[in-house]
Amino acid sequence: MGQGRRGRADQARLAPPLDQPTDTRPRPLQFQTTTHMNPQELKSIMGSGLLSFPLTDFDAEGNFDRKGYAERLEWLAPYGATALFAAGGTGEFFSLTADEYPEIIQTAVDTCRGKVPIIAGAGGPTRFAIQCAQAAEKAGAHGVLLLPHYLTEAGQEGLAAHVEAVCRSVKFGVIVYNRGQSKLYPATLEKLAERCSNLVGFKDGIGDIELMSSIHLRMGDRFAYLGGLPTAEVYAAAYKALGTPVYSSAVFNFIPRTAMDFYRAVADDDMATQHRLLKSFFMPYLEIRNQGQGYAVSIVKAGAKIVGHDAGPVRTPLTELKKNECEALAALIEALGPQQ
Amino acid sequence: MGQGRRGRADQARLAPPLDQPTDTRPRPLQFQTTTHMNPQELKSIMGSGLLSFPLTDFDAEGNFDRKGYAERLEWLAPYGATALFAAGGTGEFFSLTADEYPEIIQTAVDTCRGKVPIIAGAGGPTRFAIQCAQAAEKAGAHGVLLLPHYLTEAGQEGLAAHVEAVCRSVKFGVIVYNRGQSKLYPATLEKLAERCSNLVGFKDGIGDIELMSSIHLRMGDRFAYLGGLPTAEVYAAAYKALGTPVYSSAVFNFIPRTAMDFYRAVADDDMATQHRLLKSFFMPYLEIRNQGQGYAVSIVKAGAKIVGHDAGPVRTPLTELKKNECEALAALIEALGPQQ
Amino acid sequence: MGQGRRGRADQARLAPPLDQPTDTRPRPLQFQTTTHMNPQELKSIMGSGLLSFPLTDFDAEGNFDRKGYAERLEWLAPYGATALFAAGGTGEFFSLTADEYPEIIQTAVDTCRGKVPIIAGAGGPTRFAIQCAQAAEKAGAHGVLLLPHYLTEAGQEGLAAHVEAVCRSVKFGVIVYNRGQSKLYPATLEKLAERCSNLVGFKDGIGDIELMSSIHLRMGDRFAYLGGLPTAEVYAAAYKALGTPVYSSAVFNFIPRTAMDFYRAVADDDMATQHRLLKSFFMPYLEIRNQGQGYAVSIVKAGAKIVGHDAGPVRTPLTELKKNECEALAALIEALGPQQ
Amino acid sequence: MGQGRRGRADQARLAPPLDQPTDTRPRPLQFQTTTHMNPQELKSIMGSGLLSFPLTDFDAEGNFDRKGYAERLEWLAPYGATALFAAGGTGEFFSLTADEYPEIIQTAVDTCRGKVPIIAGAGGPTRFAIQCAQAAEKAGAHGVLLLPHYLTEAGQEGLAAHVEAVCRSVKFGVIVYNRGQSKLYPATLEKLAERCSNLVGFKDGIGDIELMSSIHLRMGDRFAYLGGLPTAEVYAAAYKALGTPVYSSAVFNFIPRTAMDFYRAVADDDMATQHRLLKSFFMPYLEIRNQGQGYAVSIVKAGAKIVGHDAGPVRTPLTELKKNECEALAALIEALGPQQ
Repeated sequence: MGQGRRGRADQARLAPPLDQPTDTRPRPLQFQTTTHMNPQELKSIMGSGLLSFPLTDFDAEGNFDRKGYAERLEWLAPYGATALFAAGGTGEFFSLTADEYPEIIQTAVDTCRGKVPIIAGAGGPTRFAIQCAQAAEKAGAHGVLLLPHYLTEAGQEGLAAHVEAVCRSVKFGVIVYNRGQSKLYPATLEKLAERCSNLVGFKDGIGDIELMSSIHLRMGDRFAYLGGLPTAEVYAAAYKALGTPVYSSAVFNFIPRTAMDFYRAVADDDMATQHRLLKSFFMPYLEIRNQGQGYAVSIVKAGAKIVGHDAGPVRTPLTELKKNECEALAALIEALGPQQ
Repeated sequence: MGQGRRGRADQARLAPPLDQPTDTRPRPLQFQTTTHMNPQELKSIMGSGLLSFPLTDFDAEGNFDRKGYAERLEWLAPYGATALFAAGGTGEFFSLTADEYPEIIQTAVDTCRGKVPIIAGAGGPTRFAIQCAQAAEKAGAHGVLLLPHYLTEAGQEGLAAHVEAVCRSVKFGVIVYNRGQSKLYPATLEKLAERCSNLVGFKDGIGDIELMSSIHLRMGDRFAYLGGLPTAEVYAAAYKALGTPVYSSAVFNFIPRTAMDFYRAVADDDMATQHRLLKSFFMPYLEIRNQGQGYAVSIVKAGAKIVGHDAGPVRTPLTELKKNECEALAALIEALGPQQ
Repeated sequence: MGQGRRGRADQARLAPPLDQPTDTRPRPLQFQTTTHMNPQELKSIMGSGLLSFPLTDFDAEGNFDRKGYAERLEWLAPYGATALFAAGGTGEFFSLTADEYPEIIQTAVDTCRGKVPIIAGAGGPTRFAIQCAQAAEKAGAHGVLLLPHYLTEAGQEGLAAHVEAVCRSVKFGVIVYNRGQSKLYPATLEKLAERCSNLVGFKDGIGDIELMSSIHLRMGDRFAYLGGLPTAEVYAAAYKALGTPVYSSAVFNFIPRTAMDFYRAVADDDMATQHRLLKSFFMPYLEIRNQGQGYAVSIVKAGAKIVGHDAGPVRTPLTELKKNECEALAALIEALGPQQ
Repeated sequence: MGQGRRGRADQARLAPPLDQPTDTRPRPLQFQTTTHMNPQELKSIMGSGLLSFPLTDFDAEGNFDRKGYAERLEWLAPYGATALFAAGGTGEFFSLTADEYPEIIQTAVDTCRGKVPIIAGAGGPTRFAIQCAQAAEKAGAHGVLLLPHYLTEAGQEGLAAHVEAVCRSVKFGVIVYNRGQSKLYPATLEKLAERCSNLVGFKDGIGDIELMSSIHLRMGDRFAYLGGLPTAEVYAAAYKALGTPVYSSAVFNFIPRTAMDFYRAVADDDMATQHRLLKSFFMPYLEIRNQGQGYAVSIVKAGAKIVGHDAGPVRTPLTELKKNECEALAALIEALGPQQ
């Protein structure tokens, strides 16, 4: 990689990962995260490198395990993700209650201060999503990812009003997440973007190329984009070709070095490395993941345990991987070689 | 179960609505609801007459309006529903937060004490559903309807663990609700019934005749059954024919007399009355309701306002009916004649 | 309509099956089917008793087996079905070619002349459906069941034009079949009914109670209705309660006596018999049927073989039941007792 | 494979379109299509450039218009598509009958001989698909695209048997098409590839990136791949990034120059041109196309008429675009400038 590229990468992200692709050892980052980050800074961060969603640690009783969670973040922080999403989908946001949420975000912010920005999950009923977003802002998080509302069908107008209400409740940046029954169309996003200057990011969890392309072509650089399908690596090259190269990696939670290697292969259009890892790891990984509904998260917790960073049990309605599934996953991980 | 309680349950099951089908005037019920009701009493209640889900009142700022809600329940209580579900789907459970939930249930219990049993909604993350269920039990509600979990996919085993955790957290009866991605199959329900003696009811919001029939044939009188599709009147005759004659009426919220008339026509196999009301009211009503996603609730709030019992605005992501839709609804309601 | 025909239609509608429910032995029917039947006669026939869809016999090479098919129809004709559908869904219409279709219909018409009316399947591309319908009319069939078009998406206007073209190509009656991507809504059916006097029947293969009820309430006695979900017995009571008591029985192909018993139990609102047969036979039958896609037909061919009326192999893309599935089916059939 | 043939295949693969991207004027191709082409040659052709599906011409009565069709192919042949699919999806294969199919293919083969290879559509019931494939082979077509079977659900095993039967019925190459309910998974495709040496191509009409990627990673260069979603240009960059750069263009039917320009922009990773055309043409085009079910074909016939190459009416169940939709389309086409 030539000097010019290094320079451009530095500008984009300020961070080492792409500069020193062969050195993946944990290291203190110079990156100094401010306590507050304005929406445009969040947007820049989102567009500049790999993102990940750390698991949330629970103890044997299923209660939040603050100590384990802090250690997890300290372990993951140096690997080069551009931002970490606390209490996102992989962090079982969908199983958290109002009383435990602030502590989780505060732990993430405190642990990662000066290391890596923290974007907090929010979602559910409008008023609960606002409570989350405001708690996250107060805790010093750098933005919020808005997960879907709860249960009811809703039309574009109602979804927009929901998103707008959350955006107006905070000053920091908001990333909206298309997933399940919360599916915003380009015209709706355009209106929201006009009304909410702090709506700066769009995460896709639908996987409809026509819709994703329509949104990107309509909104252009008004948003930062984030590929957010489960096991997003499988979609990464396709999304990059659409103009949206950034994605969030769930496997970063247990094979952070491989996750970064794959991300760099995408960034460099290194198809050989992508195909090698897709064939040797991700495709058989999908076969395990597709054995059970909800395994997109369970398998990540299983992976973390296998690599010695146990995050405790998943909460219902998720279930643990079966023994043979864990063994198959362990074999896949081992074949990748050391992650340190 | 003491003699006194058994007596009351019998009264409920054999209560006036079906005995005196021609007298639909509001009247003081002799039914004396106890503060506590055991699961079998709840099951008896569920199987004995029309159920309904009152709207939840919000003020202009969208905050819970306790006074309006109490007046609503006082208005509806004498019309002959066997039980009222506080903070259920039509009550926008999906938009409520942990801090406002207990007051809603307490208001319902206090207002309806001695008049009609209150079953409380619960749902979302397992721990939140437990918080709801326990708060409802403490407030003196007579059981809980468990709405779906939030967001994540889940398999049968995980869904069962979720339902079991909620059942074990309370002593009163639990009704489980198949809807959306929370879809329990007969074998799962059978296991749950063995493990949870207080799981006494099943509500269907899927509308798959084969599944509903399979569940009913497998579980028989172990459960009480409740047809819970939106505008359940349309399904009532079919579900009765499967052996599950009880349903919950949303339109009871604004045309309680017609709702009771229809229920009696179903109970009496009076197809002429059913078809007359289906053709003159319910089918054109569906045409309005199907204009917008989420209108299944919005149209009920619109109806309540039209009949002079305004429950305030819906919360996002729901939206209000358009003006012309309200006018069409008003014309339909007026054509039914007086409801008192 | 001449006096003689009217008389025969009356005979059909009032025919023995429902009059003499306890005598189920095969018997020569007095019913003398004319070579031609007008659409209103077809409609009367459709509304008067159990319908069934005989399997189509193939030899070891998969070619149409005329002799086997004729024997099948002679075996089934006396059991009391009001009409038989030749080359319908259970008869693998979806696997037949233009050159073999006329022979199948001609065989059915010739074999059943004077015994039971034959309604022929038709479907696929508009022009192919017209070829089928005209060939069936020429062969002396008494009407046609219009199965869905092939492959493409289509809107209501295009579907209506397709159905109208088929109706206009023949003089006898047409029954339209909602299934898969061919889903006509009430307003479309109303327009078609105005334009096509020979469109006299509606068969439902969707299973959406709200849609079925809307259609029935809108169209009333303009159509005869036919419940046509796979294993329609499971839906029969529900559909009867909606006002559409007639259905087509696939299991009639191998347990004709039980099929007629069940039909009479539906006609008589005999819930005990229905529930007994649903629990002892149909529910475990569904468990086998749901093991494989396309098994709704394969399991019927397996059943026919088990009872000594082998219809040969299914055509691709259908597959035969596995050995253990056949054994489970044989046990279910045996438990029902003799069918003669 | 003889020397001459190999040479011609090489010519095809290395043919002008990508070599001379700036010269888009119609020109006589040196490519001399032989009457027969072996499966590997077909595979080479498929992987070497833009493919397209010409419309099928119908006259005012809806009958096949041989003269119009021949003129259409003569018009389109010089524009640089690597192969043309006669009677494919855009050619309304789904509306054709057995008696008109051979003439269509023969017309295409005769007209394009020595200009561009013809791949014929086939589909529907197994035996009909075989009739088509054999007729196409006899007519001198260079391969067959196997569209889905008709109507019935089917499992992987049955789908595979269906595809295998078609492959075994011919000697030339077969391309299988995942679309709608005919969805082959990687393991099934792998087995089919082992058993059918003439199965050389895979066309995707599902749009599931995870599935497409799984198939490509599993099958590698055993197959040639073809992106076949409606308006495939929207997916082209994403599919190229997965390793499958070839797609079939429907708009080639009326804006062949723009279609070739876009194809070259994809081949050259020229994102600026792609985004310009996507924003100025394809996105507003999708808005028209998405107005009606089945418009994916109707809009192409409308486009052909607008540019002076009227192909006559669509067949039911398709419908023509409305007048205002045609005007909007005409404006989009005009804005692209001359296509010659």
